[in-house]
Amino acid sequence: MPTTVNAYIATAADQPLEATTIQRRDPKPHDVVIDIAYAGICHSDIHTARSEWGRTAFPVVPGHEIAGLVSAVGSEVTRYQVGDRVGVGCFVDSCRECDACKQGEEQYCERGMTGTYNAVDRDGEPTHGGYSTAIVVDENYVCGIPEGIDLDVAAPLLCAGITLYSPLRHWQAGPGKKVAIIGLGGLGHVGVKIAHAMGAEVTVLSQSLKKMEDGHRLGADHYYATSDPDTFTALRNEFDLIINTVSANLDIKQYLSLLAINGTLVELGLPEHPIEVPAFAVTANRRSFAGSMIGGIAETQEMLEFCAEHGIGSEIEVIGADKINEAYDRVVASDVRYRFVIDTATL
Amino acid sequence: MPTTVNAYIATAADQPLEATTIQRRDPKPHDVVIDIAYAGICHSDIHTARSEWGRTAFPVVPGHEIAGLVSAVGSEVTRYQVGDRVGVGCFVDSCRECDACKQGEEQYCERGMTGTYNAVDRDGEPTHGGYSTAIVVDENYVCGIPEGIDLDVAAPLLCAGITLYSPLRHWQAGPGKKVAIIGLGGLGHVGVKIAHAMGAEVTVLSQSLKKMEDGHRLGADHYYATSDPDTFTALRNEFDLIINTVSANLDIKQYLSLLAINGTLVELGLPEHPIEVPAFAVTANRRSFAGSMIGGIAETQEMLEFCAEHGIGSEIEVIGADKINEAYDRVVASDVRYRFVIDTATL
Repeated sequence: MPTTVNAYIATAADQPLEATTIQRRDPKPHDVVIDIAYAGICHSDIHTARSEWGRTAFPVVPGHEIAGLVSAVGSEVTRYQVGDRVGVGCFVDSCRECDACKQGEEQYCERGMTGTYNAVDRDGEPTHGGYSTAIVVDENYVCGIPEGIDLDVAAPLLCAGITLYSPLRHWQAGPGKKVAIIGLGGLGHVGVKIAHAMGAEVTVLSQSLKKMEDGHRLGADHYYATSDPDTFTALRNEFDLIINTVSANLDIKQYLSLLAINGTLVELGLPEHPIEVPAFAVTANRRSFAGSMIGGIAETQEMLEFCAEHGIGSEIEVIGADKINEAYDRVVASDVRYRFVIDTATL
Repeated sequence: MPTTVNAYIATAADQPLEATTIQRRDPKPHDVVIDIAYAGICHSDIHTARSEWGRTAFPVVPGHEIAGLVSAVGSEVTRYQVGDRVGVGCFVDSCRECDACKQGEEQYCERGMTGTYNAVDRDGEPTHGGYSTAIVVDENYVCGIPEGIDLDVAAPLLCAGITLYSPLRHWQAGPGKKVAIIGLGGLGHVGVKIAHAMGAEVTVLSQSLKKMEDGHRLGADHYYATSDPDTFTALRNEFDLIINTVSANLDIKQYLSLLAINGTLVELGLPEHPIEVPAFAVTANRRSFAGSMIGGIAETQEMLEFCAEHGIGSEIEVIGADKINEAYDRVVASDVRYRFVIDTATL
């Protein structure tokens, strides 16, 4: 029999989220029941709750940065047991048969991964996310959170953390590599920490110098304001890797000009308009303009272990459920350092 | 005392090229004097002669696909001797001091390589290219042409060949890799030959099936018409590497959708307008949109040896100098299979 749990739900694009209850399924043989402790607020939650990506199936419970404790397991679960510290990220299933799934790149599943919310699962039921007191997820889509990280600062790693870790690892950030992070927000600040821990020389490219002190504290070696045109002259041909965490449309050719030979600029956001790339901006220096989207389950686990080993968590502001709508406005206004995390005990 | 040599020269954007004579410098200690046998006609020659890239310093002798024999050497030349079969490509000098030059990537010289024509050399003299009976070039910017390739079919390798070889090598075309070449023209046809010789599974993506028989003969395993929308459905997520040899603005997101996980689309041309890349087209499958520009001197030498080993030359139509203007029109109309080569004895 399904279980009723507390949740915060979006009912329409123009309505605030509100308290409600939802049903969670009985655990199937491979399911893990998780008592959620914390759920991060990702900008994607807001895009979905406000239907800004134009395809929200209301009502929907957002939240795909989930940390908690296992409270029950299905009869055939082998990976987790009651009491384990676990996390769930942006997806809760995938086809498991395509090349992407077999390679452990479930985020690129050819038939489409099943989103943690605003999706329909393999049984035809709508999925609901982490703004709730419990969730039921197949063990293969659950990650263990190592002892070294508190659950509250771990929650945002399940989306923001892996979104930065995956491209930094893929494009080999490390000693001798110069890495720039565009934007010091929910994504960018974790990127600075991880890139620094990987041993790269890290530069923050931010609109202003407002957060410079923070940037250095988080691990940045250099900090530049992109509102200053001199920045683009001073840093020409400088970086091996640039990670763009800003979702707004930037003048990307300016940033491409900062790449050294064989350098790559990785786009993480989904700006509204296509990005204009003049051919000369990439033919010069054999540059690449690339994209990346979260990471696979095995890589997410690897990321959590890396973060535990290096003492990395998100910088957070913990809020009660009654502050979710206010927090949404503050995220949109970039008024958070650096991630809101909902204490689900308040739901 | 400078030597007077025959040449074909462009005097203004709206005038046909015409026969003339130009001066070649006396060989400096490291110079090689080359009796040119053949000079390929590259589309860049036409863009320059017609000032379509907006910066031609007339008058200019085009030609950067040069093959010939060494006729004299400077006092300190060690790499070549009289009678050697040699080639010259798109540049004849570079700063030799920047990181790019030191890495053998002279084409990305931070201070700018010295173009074979329409440039000003380190002594302040304008450079003139291969549509002439002789040229004088520093030995470090001259490549040896192995015995295995005839000089006429070798000439286009100095630009078209290296332009394709370099990205195919850089992005590791080889056994187990699926490579697509967009466009079967002067660049594309050499790309098919080289990618096939590297052991990749090669697909041609051409506007129509007009040249399909040629494509298969040159080494393509598959051939698709991009005018057929089914092509983009059938080949979704198919390729590891796509090389775009077409200079016109294509709807690049369609082609990006054909890339498998971690796939790269490499742009070689310089279309007039910026290329529009929607973020989702690269964030899906962690794709890259990259550029590449010719290759370094060492890599050009490597390419010539690879081509000799695999019996690869350009498919050519040899013409006399009096046909250069007509050939230009035919190149613009894509009416050549696949490269015009000027027999410089006719100059």
